[in-house]
Amino acid sequence: ADAAAGKAKSVVCAACHGTNGISQIPMYPNLAGQKEQYLVSSLKAFRDGQRKNMIMAPMAANLSDADIENLAAYYAKLDPAGK
Amino acid sequence: ADAAAGKAKSVVCAACHGTNGISQIPMYPNLAGQKEQYLVSSLKAFRDGQRKNMIMAPMAANLSDADIENLAAYYAKLDPAGK
Repeated sequence: ADAAAGKAKSVVCAACHGTNGISQIPMYPNLAGQKEQYLVSSLKAFRDGQRKNMIMAPMAANLSDADIENLAAYYAKLDPAGK
Repeated sequence: ADAAAGKAKSVVCAACHGTNGISQIPMYPNLAGQKEQYLVSSLKAFRDGQRKNMIMAPMAANLSDADIENLAAYYAKLDPAGK
């Protein structure tokens, strides 16, 4: 996976999940340092409607598998403490 | 919420999510330092079947709201870097 491409793709995600992957909004999860495979399966579940969320569905709808793998690689590599 | 009660309740969770809230299993998410409200809403979604997961459903089935709040408080306070 290409974390740099993931970073480029993550601009819209940062609005809720933070530019460093630590969310400023209590209801939205931190993504920094999360398990890469968990991020992939979550994004695919949102894309395919297996996991229902009105905010994430449109976010994930147009992501390709490659986009998803790159985003997951990017966030998994971020410092879980947000530095 | 009572994080100490959450810690006592978390023994079964540690099997997959790690004793320090950092999972050793790629598909299972880290919980350490996650957003408390996100943890509460996730556990309730698993308990109520809004979020479908064969492993988490039985884990959450018997949790009371207080258990869920205590577990969320416990995990949210753990060091996201797992120390």
